[in-house]
Amino acid sequence: MSALSEFSLIKQYFENITTERSDVILGIGDDCALLKCPEGQQLAVSIDTLVEGVHFLPDVDPVSLGHKSLAVGLSDLAAMGATPAWFTLALTLPELDQQWLAAFSKGLACLAKLHNIALVGGDTSRGPLSISIQVHGFVNAGDSLRRDGAKKGDLIYVTGSLGDAAGALAMKQGKLTKGVASEVEVNFLCQRLEQPTPRVEVGQMLVGFASAAIDISDGLVADLGHILHKSAVGAELDIEDLPISTALSALSTEAEHMALFAGDNYELCFTVPPKHKNQVQKKLKGQCQCTRIGTITGDDGIVFFKDKKLIKLSGFGYEHFSTGH
Amino acid sequence: MSALSEFSLIKQYFENITTERSDVILGIGDDCALLKCPEGQQLAVSIDTLVEGVHFLPDVDPVSLGHKSLAVGLSDLAAMGATPAWFTLALTLPELDQQWLAAFSKGLACLAKLHNIALVGGDTSRGPLSISIQVHGFVNAGDSLRRDGAKKGDLIYVTGSLGDAAGALAMKQGKLTKGVASEVEVNFLCQRLEQPTPRVEVGQMLVGFASAAIDISDGLVADLGHILHKSAVGAELDIEDLPISTALSALSTEAEHMALFAGDNYELCFTVPPKHKNQVQKKLKGQCQCTRIGTITGDDGIVFFKDKKLIKLSGFGYEHFSTGH
Repeated sequence: MSALSEFSLIKQYFENITTERSDVILGIGDDCALLKCPEGQQLAVSIDTLVEGVHFLPDVDPVSLGHKSLAVGLSDLAAMGATPAWFTLALTLPELDQQWLAAFSKGLACLAKLHNIALVGGDTSRGPLSISIQVHGFVNAGDSLRRDGAKKGDLIYVTGSLGDAAGALAMKQGKLTKGVASEVEVNFLCQRLEQPTPRVEVGQMLVGFASAAIDISDGLVADLGHILHKSAVGAELDIEDLPISTALSALSTEAEHMALFAGDNYELCFTVPPKHKNQVQKKLKGQCQCTRIGTITGDDGIVFFKDKKLIKLSGFGYEHFSTGH
Repeated sequence: MSALSEFSLIKQYFENITTERSDVILGIGDDCALLKCPEGQQLAVSIDTLVEGVHFLPDVDPVSLGHKSLAVGLSDLAAMGATPAWFTLALTLPELDQQWLAAFSKGLACLAKLHNIALVGGDTSRGPLSISIQVHGFVNAGDSLRRDGAKKGDLIYVTGSLGDAAGALAMKQGKLTKGVASEVEVNFLCQRLEQPTPRVEVGQMLVGFASAAIDISDGLVADLGHILHKSAVGAELDIEDLPISTALSALSTEAEHMALFAGDNYELCFTVPPKHKNQVQKKLKGQCQCTRIGTITGDDGIVFFKDKKLIKLSGFGYEHFSTGH
């Protein structure tokens, strides 16, 4: 098959992803897409790549992979409080596998429709399997959530539960048996790894109320660390308040460690000034679970409390604080 | 080295690429970049991937690779008549090679500065070497060059010379000796392959005058074919008018074939209504060479003339037209 007819074949799987949007002046099929940005709004953009064997296992279900490829970008929009609008897809494929393409594009299309985000352009190459997606969204000028606004005394929250994806991955890689986790719990964890839910609506609701936000893609400690660094503040975290799913607790005795350090979460971590606490709790009622896990301090770095005792983290674990150190 | 400190190291090479632009509200370093689109303008976007062993040879000079990775996208903006503004970079690297990163980012930065395009976001992954770049530019609403506006009687032009990159690639792959080409000519061809010049200014000058435009990344016949298909017209091409460099003629007896079919050109092919012919010629004087190569017709497909005789193309070559077929 010539490169051109192969290209047409690939194209057909993605043509139906284009949700109708009046701000798409020219979609797929020219040298560039032409798009109309609404007046008074800023454009939020983020690009992410998923590489086979690095970000996902070779035997991953392609429907899930299509979902996750877009979810990762939507989670970045969520962390800015942005409304999704358009995305582009650069897909590198080792071979033309129509069954794979149908499944991948289905996963992508379902999540795209849910968030009214239109595929406006792309590029297909031959090579080791890899997916780059750029997402575009809007925020009212000056209204976005950023990393640099946390202040001493602000309350620290996270959405959903932490560490589930890491648990599922360890199990899939044979590094963990399923422990006392039931089939339902195992499925829940796998779903959290393979089809994460970007917290787009929560992000939008936090605009005007949260002082800072980030999505937890690198792990809570690393990502909260970005907020602290950009805001020039510190934090106290209460280990026993970490939202850990019963499924993860059933799977592993390392659940707390995963909740603190493991990435691939796609939950939001955000800070709220005490004066907005009640409004935020009211707004988020009926949305996903949001848990207060600590407080912003004026000092550098993160200190951890467990059972009201200060503990010290060492490497990727933690130990009780000793004055001898 | 931990993944995080490795990431910081990679980041430093790209921090200096951010040309100062007042429309970048928030650049690299948050979940999304925040950008301000000018009122009354449309946003033109395009994403392209270059994969090692597919789009470039493993031993390519990294400075050239940095240049070309951005040039490919700028060429898409050129084909729309857009003014470059911002780009994002998704870079997948097999290893941390600081010398390579310094050279790659240098090539990227030089071309970025030349076109006042700012790096606003990115993602770095470990994996087989691959570069995805999305470019963003502006066009006045309704003023872009598109593929669908060519009309019967319009004149067909191309910028620069055709087939040079294919000649250089064949030589580098050992499929061609350098023929009677001099060292200077060989260097010219390699430059055309590795550091193509995106025709950004030409594209902008054509706005309001050209009826259709495309960049020649897949080869003249294929890309002109896209204009014909989208505009529902045909074309007559004069083979002897194809702009072929003396370097390519010296290298190969297959120069015409390369000029017609070989991709990786990044020249523009555009159509001009006869009434705009003089204005376009005047505007482009002192810019790069632009050559008229044929005329848009009302029929389907492309017919080729050589020495005023109709010839028929067969496969990837061509032969004199025979009424027997």
